[in-house]
Order: sequence, then structure tokens, then C-alpha cells
Amino acid sequence: MNRENYWKTVCLMDIEKELQENRRLIDSIIKSKFPRNIDSSYLKWLAGDTSYLYDLEVVQKTIFDPMWDLLSRGGKRWRPWLFLILANNLGVDLDKFRDLVTIVELLHNGSLVADDIEDGADIRRGDKAIHLKYGLDIAVNLSSAMYFMPLRILMEMDVSRDIYRRLVEAYIEDMIRIHLGQATDIGWHRGLRDPESIKVEHYLQMCANKTGVLPRLAARFAAILAQLSPENEAKIGKFAESIGIAFQIQDDIINVIGAEKLGKSFGEDITEGKITLMTIYTLSRASEEDKRRLKEILEMHTRDRALIEEAISILKRYGSIEYAKKFAKDLVKKSWENVESILPNNEYKEKLRSLANFMVEREF
Amino acid sequence: MNRENYWKTVCLMDIEKELQENRRLIDSIIKSKFPRNIDSSYLKWLAGDTSYLYDLEVVQKTIFDPMWDLLSRGGKRWRPWLFLILANNLGVDLDKFRDLVTIVELLHNGSLVADDIEDGADIRRGDKAIHLKYGLDIAVNLSSAMYFMPLRILMEMDVSRDIYRRLVEAYIEDMIRIHLGQATDIGWHRGLRDPESIKVEHYLQMCANKTGVLPRLAARFAAILAQLSPENEAKIGKFAESIGIAFQIQDDIINVIGAEKLGKSFGEDITEGKITLMTIYTLSRASEEDKRRLKEILEMHTRDRALIEEAISILKRYGSIEYAKKFAKDLVKKSWENVESILPNNEYKEKLRSLANFMVEREF
Repeated sequence: MNRENYWKTVCLMDIEKELQENRRLIDSIIKSKFPRNIDSSYLKWLAGDTSYLYDLEVVQKTIFDPMWDLLSRGGKRWRPWLFLILANNLGVDLDKFRDLVTIVELLHNGSLVADDIEDGADIRRGDKAIHLKYGLDIAVNLSSAMYFMPLRILMEMDVSRDIYRRLVEAYIEDMIRIHLGQATDIGWHRGLRDPESIKVEHYLQMCANKTGVLPRLAARFAAILAQLSPENEAKIGKFAESIGIAFQIQDDIINVIGAEKLGKSFGEDITEGKITLMTIYTLSRASEEDKRRLKEILEMHTRDRALIEEAISILKRYGSIEYAKKFAKDLVKKSWENVESILPNNEYKEKLRSLANFMVEREF
Repeated sequence: MNRENYWKTVCLMDIEKELQENRRLIDSIIKSKFPRNIDSSYLKWLAGDTSYLYDLEVVQKTIFDPMWDLLSRGGKRWRPWLFLILANNLGVDLDKFRDLVTIVELLHNGSLVADDIEDGADIRRGDKAIHLKYGLDIAVNLSSAMYFMPLRILMEMDVSRDIYRRLVEAYIEDMIRIHLGQATDIGWHRGLRDPESIKVEHYLQMCANKTGVLPRLAARFAAILAQLSPENEAKIGKFAESIGIAFQIQDDIINVIGAEKLGKSFGEDITEGKITLMTIYTLSRASEEDKRRLKEILEMHTRDRALIEEAISILKRYGSIEYAKKFAKDLVKKSWENVESILPNNEYKEKLRSLANFMVEREF
């Protein structure tokens, strides 16, 4: 199979099977740049010439072992896949630029390590959270190491200085955003604001930053490499941000209605005291008694099943699940309309639309 | 006072007074870009256009309040000062580029937040460590936010695409290194390696990455803006790395001989089980009994005064303090000889040499 057919085959299978097949491909790319086992010539590539001597064994144990432990546990890899489809759609040469998927996926996994520390989560993808398995110190350092190591890819990229600057600026802007989103989410968990005063617009901004940013970055990378205008880059970025938000809304719905396929236990968001579109909607229309009780349970950070189910029944009482479902679907629909005319008509365009719909149709 | 005289005055006062005066200057630059109190137009500058609405109050409380709490507590600001002196020495236009000090200082303070979490430290600069005062979640997020926010400065910098790429690559490479250094230090604390098998060359590499990297970055920024060749940039970077290592060795000596001006309690390094040049030297020549006992106490992570003093007396017994002092002085001397011919002869050159010497002469 020649290269061109290879990429087409990868991107045009049935959607769930495709995500699975794609996972193998993405992981093989990551592994080619960030191997499971490192040696000193590798560290020279990664971090440049050094004056003295690395303790290879310890770097292996404190960075590469826990990183690959996490990567091996699964994950959909849909963010890098979004990059691949969009790049194909826009005619980007993937033989030259495919390594960029590494940036998107490592950033995502690094952010999961931080998320779990910040949320006090026990489990990630069916195994102990990294900070519990390897220690808080290793996890904190690993998380931000994964924000920087993949940029090595950018350093060796053969692109014009102009494209280079645009890629770097997309990265910087989006990494700033992800921290603002996380800060907001943390502040809300901590009760720094009365949940009743949080508006839908606040929620969407938090979500855009927290969950929309990495698909947005993946999409902007593809648009920049295709040399689209900054205006069209922004539109495509906005589309990806929107499907990221929709993905999060769907994730929150799944958490409430109880799927367990994500390796997350059902109702965990109630325990975390998480503010979701459903809680905001409910707080905007529930009776005083229901409002008071819902806020009370969210503030408890409880693991008590009866209390969790009581909170969920309040959410259900006001139709917040249907509201959130419709909201996510409308968001995807509208965001698609905004990019439809920019994207060239080819087989990848349809695939992209399927991915967008998958975000709000999936049940795992 | 005209601009030129202003910068000269700032950089040519007596060294300790200069560090103090310089602090005010650096902080006013930081404040002009990262104010204590933010508004929505500020967040637009920082993170770009948004689709929805920020929760300003919560971002203020979770990022800007703890960041300024830490910055206001003190610190020598010698890394940004190194940038300013070197830039002056090399003829860089500081009216145009002075904002770069922000990057160096925010990176440093972000790394302190992470350090304190990783080391389980209670106190930083005479007040509670950030993760204890504001919470682990806020601290973890703040730490890496401070690695990215100052890059906004880079985005608006009016430099050639070539200079831009060199600045970004220095940043990426050094941020990767800092995480490798931290990973190594953590692994050693955790006993992932028998302290006896750690060589001086391993220690110096860890230290180059952990403490040498930020002065190195400050120096490389100045060298790149002065359009020095990559070779000379590397030499000046190596000089800065060396004085960073010397700074660390001196810090470790101070911790053992007991100064308390840093807001650190005496002997804390013994409690942390920290591997220093002094421990490596002692383990390479102590009696079997002293080796065994020193390792035993380091592994205890004890706060018991008698045990801490016993460990220190073993370190003293083999002359490791004198060894470390001489090592640091020789390192500074040699590193100076390697850049002396590159640096133009002007008043800032002498100042730079004084700073290098200050690293190994200081007692706080």
C-alpha cells in the first residue's frame, strides 16, 4: 500500500473501529519519538548537549515509566485523530507533519495527571491515578514535563519561520487558556462562588478552556500547516472548541446517567461538587427547597450512594438532562454550519462531521 | 535622567544594594504585564478572544492572588538581573526588550511552587508554602500557569522570525531540562538509587538542570537578542549554568552551616534526604560505619534535631564543606575564563564578574 492510500485507509473506516485502529497508529508515532525505554543518545536529542552525566535509570523511572503506564491504559485518542482528519481534509502532507499528533496527545495526558491531583481522583482509566501509584512529587513533575517534551517535535519541524511562529503562538495561547479554565473549575469546586450565580456563559467559557482547548489546538495546527488565513484558522479552531465542549457536556451526562465504561465510577461528579450545565440549569429553575438541597449535597463532597442519587434525582426532576443533550447537539450543529463552506469537499469532510456527531451520540 | 543613564545607574550600584534596587525595577516590569488585579480586557490580552464569559473573580483568586502573594514575599531576583546586566554588556536595547525579565522570574517562581509540593515543604520565604496556604489544586495549576503566562510577552515581541525561533527554542530546551533535573532530584529523594552510586558528574547534571537552567535561559535570551552566534550563545549559557550550579552548592552549604535568612530552617536538607555535593563527597571517603549512619539518617526524613546534627557532624568530619566551597569557587573561576574573551569590555563586564563571585561568597 502506498503512503497516500495508507492515510486514506486509516481515516475512512467505520467510526468506532476507526478510533481503535487509529489508536495503534497514534501510539506508534508517539513511541517513535517518546520511546518506552530511553538511552543517553535519546536524552541528547530530547534536551540538547549536556556538560555532565544523566542518571538515566532514575529519569526512566520518574518520567518514562509512569508516562507509558498512563498512555498504555487507553484513551480514545480522538484529539490527534481530529488533527489527522482535518489535515487530510485540508491537503496537509502528513508524511512530513504527522509527528504533531504527539504534541496534542501528550498535552492531553499531562493534563489528566494534573486533573487527577487537583480533583483528588483515585482512579484513571481503570487503574490507580498516577499520583497515587507513583507519588505526588513524580506526578506533579511528570504532568508539566509532558507539556514541554513534545515541543521537541516542533524544534525539528521543517516549516517556514512564519508557519513556525503561528504554530508556537497557537500553542502558547491555548496552554494559557487551559490553565485559566482549570483555575475556574477549581475555584468552583472550592466554593469560591455561589453556584447559583454561575451563568451558562461562564460555564461554557470554563469548558471551552478546559476541554475545548486541546481539540482547538489540534485543529489550529492543521489549519496553520495548510496555510489557511488567520480568520479561517480561528473559525476551524472555534469548531473544534465547540465539539470539545459538546464532548464535555456528554461526559457529564454519562456520569449522571451512569455508564461505567470510562473507568470512572457513576456519580463521581456529584462527589467532586462539580458544576455542570445540568446543575446550572437546575439551579436556575428549581424550587427553593430543591436548590438548597442540591447545593448542600454538592458542598458535602460525599461518597454516600443515597445522597448522590438524591442529587441526581433533583437534576432529573427539572429536565436538565434533556436540556444538556439538546444544548450539546445544537452546539455541534451550529459549529458545523460555520465551517462547512471553508472545508474542501472530499471524503474527510464527511468523516469530520461524523466525529462531531459522535461527540454527542456516544455512550462511553 | 535619560533612559540610557537610568539603566546604567540601575546596574552599577554596590552589589547587595543593587540587588535590592533591582528588585523594585523587576517587580514594576512584572506588574506592568501581570498586574495584581485583573479585568476582562486584561484576560483578552493574556489569552486572546473568547466566545463566552470569564469568571474574573475566581481567576483572580486562584491565579493572580496566590502568584502575587509569592512574588511579594521576596526573592533576590538575580536571574532577571543577570539578563539585564548581560543585555547591557552586549548592547541589547532594553527599552525594547526589558519585558523578557518577566519570563525568567515567573518561570522561577512557578518552579518554586512545584518544588515545595514535591518536597513537602511547609515554608517558603518566611510564610506558608503556596499549596498549604491556598490548597494543592490551586498550587499545582498555578505552578504550570506561571510557566506559560509570561510567554505572552514573547508573542508581542518585535523581533525577526529568526531571533524569535531561537528564543522559543532556548525556552523549550531549557523547560525540558528543568523537568529532567527535577525528576532526578525526586528519584534520589525517593531512594530510587543507592546514594553511594551517585557520582559527582550525576550530581552536577541534576544541578545544572534544576538550578542552572533558569540563569542559562536568562543568559541565552540576552545572547540571542544581541545576535551572537549559536556557539557564543552556548558559551554564555554555560557560564550562567555554572554560576547557577555554584549558587546551589552555596545554598546547600548554607543549609548545613545554619544561616536562617532564607526563610528555610537549618538542616532541612537532611530532613528531605537531599543528595548534595557534600553527601556524595562524604560517602566516597567515609568509614563504613559513618557511611551507613549518614545514609540511615537521610532515609529517615527526620525532623529530630539531634539526628540532623549527627548527620551534619559526619559531613564535617570528612572536610566536605571545604571541598564543596572550593569546588564552587573553581567552577565560577573556570566558567568566567571561558567567556571573558567574548564579552565586550565595559562597566557591565566587571559587574557580571561580581555577580558570579557573589554566588559563592554570599551567606544568605
